[in-house]
Amino acid sequence: MAEIAVLGHGVVGSGVLEVLYSHRDSITKRAKEEIDVKYILDLRDFPELPYHEKFTKDFNKILQDESIKIVVEVLGGLEPAFSYVKACLEHGKSVVTSNKELVAAKGAELLALAQKNNLNFLFEASVGGGIPIIRPISQCLAANEVSEIAGILNGTTNFILTKMIRERMDFSEALKMAQQLGYAERNPAADVEGDDACRKICILASLSYGTHVYPKDVHTEGISKITLEDVSYAEAWGGVIKLIGQVKTLENGKIQIEVCPMFVSRESQLATVDDVFNGILVRGDATGDVVFYGKGAGKLPTASAVVADIIDCVKHFKARKYLFWEDAREDYVEPYENTFEDVFVRAKAVNSDFALETASRVFGEITRLIRKEEPEGEIGFTVANIQVSKLQKSLESLESAGVSVLNHIKISDF
Amino acid sequence: MAEIAVLGHGVVGSGVLEVLYSHRDSITKRAKEEIDVKYILDLRDFPELPYHEKFTKDFNKILQDESIKIVVEVLGGLEPAFSYVKACLEHGKSVVTSNKELVAAKGAELLALAQKNNLNFLFEASVGGGIPIIRPISQCLAANEVSEIAGILNGTTNFILTKMIRERMDFSEALKMAQQLGYAERNPAADVEGDDACRKICILASLSYGTHVYPKDVHTEGISKITLEDVSYAEAWGGVIKLIGQVKTLENGKIQIEVCPMFVSRESQLATVDDVFNGILVRGDATGDVVFYGKGAGKLPTASAVVADIIDCVKHFKARKYLFWEDAREDYVEPYENTFEDVFVRAKAVNSDFALETASRVFGEITRLIRKEEPEGEIGFTVANIQVSKLQKSLESLESAGVSVLNHIKISDF
Repeated sequence: MAEIAVLGHGVVGSGVLEVLYSHRDSITKRAKEEIDVKYILDLRDFPELPYHEKFTKDFNKILQDESIKIVVEVLGGLEPAFSYVKACLEHGKSVVTSNKELVAAKGAELLALAQKNNLNFLFEASVGGGIPIIRPISQCLAANEVSEIAGILNGTTNFILTKMIRERMDFSEALKMAQQLGYAERNPAADVEGDDACRKICILASLSYGTHVYPKDVHTEGISKITLEDVSYAEAWGGVIKLIGQVKTLENGKIQIEVCPMFVSRESQLATVDDVFNGILVRGDATGDVVFYGKGAGKLPTASAVVADIIDCVKHFKARKYLFWEDAREDYVEPYENTFEDVFVRAKAVNSDFALETASRVFGEITRLIRKEEPEGEIGFTVANIQVSKLQKSLESLESAGVSVLNHIKISDF
Repeated sequence: MAEIAVLGHGVVGSGVLEVLYSHRDSITKRAKEEIDVKYILDLRDFPELPYHEKFTKDFNKILQDESIKIVVEVLGGLEPAFSYVKACLEHGKSVVTSNKELVAAKGAELLALAQKNNLNFLFEASVGGGIPIIRPISQCLAANEVSEIAGILNGTTNFILTKMIRERMDFSEALKMAQQLGYAERNPAADVEGDDACRKICILASLSYGTHVYPKDVHTEGISKITLEDVSYAEAWGGVIKLIGQVKTLENGKIQIEVCPMFVSRESQLATVDDVFNGILVRGDATGDVVFYGKGAGKLPTASAVVADIIDCVKHFKARKYLFWEDAREDYVEPYENTFEDVFVRAKAVNSDFALETASRVFGEITRLIRKEEPEGEIGFTVANIQVSKLQKSLESLESAGVSVLNHIKISDF
């Protein structure tokens, strides 16, 4: 019998209980041992639940109970989650978490602590919800050099973009709908401004390249500036706009990592990842492109990933799973300004000819895109392989010359 | 130092050596031990290779060498692969294989033998080449009931169908091109008639439901009867034709399993899996739909999956991985004739009105599809939820009434 504690009885926590109870037989068979929840930590009371006697408000009770070898942290947020997880690892308890904020901020420290104490610290559910991604990257792709990862990592923004693309809702209308359906929080900033996707690409980058990348070092843009005009230009170009978290290795030994909306070609496997679904492309030197697709959030998908980690913990009490990365290195992330990209620019001036001539003069070679119902004075065009610092200066030159820059969006290379 | 032997130095075998040598450092780090190939079994000589001194033609030398704890079988085919693998498992050696024919025919027996001797028998590379699928199904989805698996499991037929759909090549022309590019064998029957896909869906079904399913018990159709007319009707219906291996659980406790071309809706994630790529959809009660996409064959993708298994074997000398299924049960597979399906029928008669009237009389409710350039006398229509035995009788009735049935194709439900 493996006795565990669950910290937090919110959406994911209650889902973990539901999955553990409803799949008890198959889980026991796979873990080769019965798994029993001894404590659930929550400040609230749930007298109506059949397992109400398991609740406690006292974390120390869990910490001091030596029969508890595995603690499941599904509180979310940085504190008290970090203090609790750290204390557990210091007290000989392996930890399973779904908390991407925690892993993105403290992964290196917690993995080092787990390694020191010969414990497991597992977090399959922190990226991609029910999609197996942490384990496949760390195991199946062990025989690969991963050159690039690109993913649609946030379901809320993908839902909003899908509504904009398919139903021509504007951003605020689509956001309102996402809130009504419970896909977006009342304060949607963490999703909409790209912070959530940023944490996830940081975790995938850290895992794939062995060096922690902190969110603060990642250029992050959200989707709140995307308009239906941009959507139309993307269509004219031959694709759709998706919020992408991307990391790749550069020849100088650094990595390029960013989160921003991108034009994604209709031919790409990520172009058809719609609604609240996530899709993650992993490019390996031996495997080529492998794509994982599924529900990136939600109670049961996330809970099932947590439970898979619990099972792995039970099976590996004595053998640690290989999951490790070093703390961040200076100069490891290429500064955003130094990176190169293909880019789409939307601009306007007194008339289209003037705007186009000015853009050609400033950028050199440009490729014009023409969208449906394009008004006189507005132009859309793409520029190939320009360094971001030069792009920024060029956009300023456009403005100085009397051409207003309405938006610019990166064009993806996958 | 973990010493291993590789049986067979063909495409996959030489790829395994290439991956092991080119990723030596990262593999050692992950396996926590260096992996060295001590023997390579092949009847041919390779004097030009830097590791030519490792070759042997004598399997018994490997079998009797107690330092060899892991044997990699990449010979393909049933014999001598089966005899060799069995002997290895009887002599205390874990086995990694990419051989789908072997696993589909002898999986239950070999897994039981491995279990009895506390050894591993791993076969990630047998399905989906470089796509991680065996491990995610057995581990990450442990907390799920899998209700259905549907996959594009054969790259050769998918390449042919893609050429038919996108470039309007006919079947024989597309097959010839696949042969010229090395995607199809000179004798393409195993791919084209669905046998290869059948072995793979048998492996996935056995793994997911814990009971071996033998290829002989699976209704299997290939793609050689698919015409450009069928492709046009699929387009009119709103999708494409794909060769699908599918298994699902039925309410009566049996499983429904088959391999056949199907109409797949444009909305499905499998519809955009093109060329030689594979895509596998796994439907779990907690995760919802998860899709895995990538190169299903080829030297390095397959080799990298084999190497991932080797690493797992090295890490788990003392702990067996959970991979197990029982031998086949009688009455476990629902007879094909008893299953229900939505189906597309293409037929012709002296004129279209007569054909349609007859079809309506025979089938009851039908939905007509109209393709581009449909000639007088030809009709296409769909029938919802009909039992296969009744479908077969109805098609005979059509024929008797003077309407020739040109083709009928299942319509997918994912």
